[in-house]
Amino acid sequence: MTFSRNAISSEHIDAHASANSSSIHYPLTPTSRSIELPDTSTRVSYRQISSYIEARIQRGDWQAHERLPSVRQLSRDSGMHRLTVFKAYQHLKTQGTIYARSKSGYYVAPPAVHTLTNENELEPARFDGTLNELHHLPARFQFSQALIDPNLLPNHYFTEYTKKVFDLYPKLLGTYAHVQGDLELRQLLAQYFSQHSRFYIEPEELLIASGAQQAIFLIAEAWIRPGDYVLVESPTYATALDVFRQKGARFLEVDIDANGYNIEQIDRLMRQYRPRLFYLNPTFHNPTGLCIPAEQRKQLVDLAAQHQCLLIEDDTCSDIYFGAAPPPPLFAYDTEGYTIHIRSFSKYISPGLRIACIAARQPWMHMLISCKSLTDGGTPLLNQKVFLHYFMSDRLHRHLDTLRIALRIRMERMQDELQQTNWRYTEPQGGLNLWIELPQELSASRLLSYALTEGISFVPGSLFDHAKRPSQHIRLSFSFANEMLIEQGMKELIRIADEL
Amino acid sequence: MTFSRNAISSEHIDAHASANSSSIHYPLTPTSRSIELPDTSTRVSYRQISSYIEARIQRGDWQAHERLPSVRQLSRDSGMHRLTVFKAYQHLKTQGTIYARSKSGYYVAPPAVHTLTNENELEPARFDGTLNELHHLPARFQFSQALIDPNLLPNHYFTEYTKKVFDLYPKLLGTYAHVQGDLELRQLLAQYFSQHSRFYIEPEELLIASGAQQAIFLIAEAWIRPGDYVLVESPTYATALDVFRQKGARFLEVDIDANGYNIEQIDRLMRQYRPRLFYLNPTFHNPTGLCIPAEQRKQLVDLAAQHQCLLIEDDTCSDIYFGAAPPPPLFAYDTEGYTIHIRSFSKYISPGLRIACIAARQPWMHMLISCKSLTDGGTPLLNQKVFLHYFMSDRLHRHLDTLRIALRIRMERMQDELQQTNWRYTEPQGGLNLWIELPQELSASRLLSYALTEGISFVPGSLFDHAKRPSQHIRLSFSFANEMLIEQGMKELIRIADEL
Repeated sequence: MTFSRNAISSEHIDAHASANSSSIHYPLTPTSRSIELPDTSTRVSYRQISSYIEARIQRGDWQAHERLPSVRQLSRDSGMHRLTVFKAYQHLKTQGTIYARSKSGYYVAPPAVHTLTNENELEPARFDGTLNELHHLPARFQFSQALIDPNLLPNHYFTEYTKKVFDLYPKLLGTYAHVQGDLELRQLLAQYFSQHSRFYIEPEELLIASGAQQAIFLIAEAWIRPGDYVLVESPTYATALDVFRQKGARFLEVDIDANGYNIEQIDRLMRQYRPRLFYLNPTFHNPTGLCIPAEQRKQLVDLAAQHQCLLIEDDTCSDIYFGAAPPPPLFAYDTEGYTIHIRSFSKYISPGLRIACIAARQPWMHMLISCKSLTDGGTPLLNQKVFLHYFMSDRLHRHLDTLRIALRIRMERMQDELQQTNWRYTEPQGGLNLWIELPQELSASRLLSYALTEGISFVPGSLFDHAKRPSQHIRLSFSFANEMLIEQGMKELIRIADEL
Repeated sequence: MTFSRNAISSEHIDAHASANSSSIHYPLTPTSRSIELPDTSTRVSYRQISSYIEARIQRGDWQAHERLPSVRQLSRDSGMHRLTVFKAYQHLKTQGTIYARSKSGYYVAPPAVHTLTNENELEPARFDGTLNELHHLPARFQFSQALIDPNLLPNHYFTEYTKKVFDLYPKLLGTYAHVQGDLELRQLLAQYFSQHSRFYIEPEELLIASGAQQAIFLIAEAWIRPGDYVLVESPTYATALDVFRQKGARFLEVDIDANGYNIEQIDRLMRQYRPRLFYLNPTFHNPTGLCIPAEQRKQLVDLAAQHQCLLIEDDTCSDIYFGAAPPPPLFAYDTEGYTIHIRSFSKYISPGLRIACIAARQPWMHMLISCKSLTDGGTPLLNQKVFLHYFMSDRLHRHLDTLRIALRIRMERMQDELQQTNWRYTEPQGGLNLWIELPQELSASRLLSYALTEGISFVPGSLFDHAKRPSQHIRLSFSFANEMLIEQGMKELIRIADEL
């Protein structure tokens, strides 16, 4: 049997209308053209039903944002199985033809809209998404992601080490990792820290996390309760702000400039608000590239102990310096145990492995292990062993020497182009970014809108602010694009700025 | 200069006593034997200081649980650097010679105590730790971990596939994964689900998690707020209870027996308490091995939609069946989108990779992606690609066929031994465990205490109960130990039970 649209309206809908009239929402005005539902006497595919629905939407029977018949209703009316109708709706939803609203049903999607350019105006639409959304926008000239160009990473050696790891541990993938992390790796890192970071630590005081992002999450999970005060630098790493915000933190801002922090300000804030923790990035700070002097590091650990405020030291870039090596981390100055040190190596070794390390004294480490245990039960052993074998080799140091030079050249290339402008910045002694103050007459968000339309991305300063206030600053990362792209992209960006 | 113990007491301590008398806690009675602090005019190692402290503890100058001098104090008294003293204390702490109390200082540890046997009584001490702690106890006869013997896993092929993956994607480790998971893997899984699990799903409705444990965590993070009611089966998976408890859930119990659930009970609980979610394990339920019939699966998804209660379907064992294949998952019956399906393959393929998949309709998937993004930014790409290439091959099916037979044989071996007893159980149609009811006169926790002293581990029923009430049940896993160990271990366990 075949249904014409009229047939549905007269026979089927009417038959059910009295029983459940509120569930009928589709217009049933007669029309000369008949769109037929497939014949249910043979096997009907969901594609046939979705074609039927599409045809009716195209004809205008169902208008944008109008509610479509429920799965149950259409299944009853057509005599087709509920799952087949459901599949058809799922298919149309994925295509973008319809959309679903929780607990309400399916609706006709409006015609596709441009997300970045607003055709009603000459001005491109402002970007107002998150850092993560910004990173996912396509860009020929990628200055927004503070990532290292994969061409500068030791990929080839990792392939080799991975193969080696399987020869060494043939049953590696059959084994769960220890919650706290592979002991062999923790022993190696403990030794590394005493040699390179000048602090003494036991493997029991280290935890392997699946990347620095997870380390920040575990700390927030362990210590931040709704309403807790948290000290953050202004500006600071947007994703950490997102994690703390989701846990209900209230933010207090700590200024950072070329002289470091204002220690009196920190003392006052700790005294007045008793913050749970201070999340800080003292070595080649993101986004500014600043480095906190040794003297302030000592003062900070004393303040932390005095006010019983944890210092969460996020250290992702201390190996990327262009002049002298930075001072030892805060953790090395701390004899009271109030510092928790996040050390990520992923960024400049192998982002894909997702290996970071948290150093913490007791009782903090016990709390972190318990959170890690509930979060994922432990970082995969394969990743830890591959990392271990690269880390054990002397290739790491050679890689870092080369990498520092390569990044420095890219930074200088970007600085060469900036000489054409009156944009201001402090030359960083390390890290992956330039933190630039635009002249008053140039709006960072307007510059970004135009830059994105030309395939140039960077991060507006507002994203490093917990309150997302407009800012004259922008962050330009020089680590991802190669020298040629930096030169072309910067020329283009400066041209756009001049035109604005 | 060298310090004798007397020298410290007379010169140094007295000099500081007036300034800060509250910080002096160590007894300074004179003695004939002098224990000397190292000479600070040459480079003093932390080991020399720790030997000094150890010697004084051994002599009884500092008694068990007595507070030791603070780092600052000992550093002042001895003229040695604070960090060196600190290192010495850290070293002694790791050795177990001393212990630290947060914000209070270091204390002398009591002489080592036996954790499992209590020497004051003839009876071994009762185990009262968590499931995780139980798994970490050494056991020759491992019947507590529901893990598959690594000898039954396709380790060899994984080595091969990992090498292949590096040839295919040489820059794999230089790349971050997508938060939601590798698209190629999600496409493959979407196809797999439609063929094997009889539900239609788009790759956009799948998320790759780092193991089923993380999947449960993400769901709890997204939906459980303190005080929320959560339905759980009684008994159920202990670690899920831990995750929900940590998020502040209040538990409501759903009975499960050989007929499945009591649907009226679920209806009543959902109506009365409006629980946020029902965490369930309907296919070869852990620990009982029961399987919920198809008819109840249909009723459940209707109830969930009616009461707007999410069904969290944890599916880790549906491929491990000994007779007929189980019915399709709840997710396949759900046209309203209230089911969230956790599918883990790790357990019987490669626990070390930590790959699980969550299937969820919108808007739930959006919420999960946002939690995953904050939790760790995405599961490592390496692990996903290695899993993908094994999963794509036809080896998976051959592996499963072999595995089902091997596990069945192990189960039968365990059952053979149980014929000697009057212990009761329902033969499972799949899964990794026997859920046994001991006779009234035998206490499960007493049996465990004695069994552990003989190197036999199993899980007492109380650990599957959110209130940890005593239980006559025990869970014996037959998947980890080989046939010989099962035979020996079971004979031994039954002998212990008979003696009790």
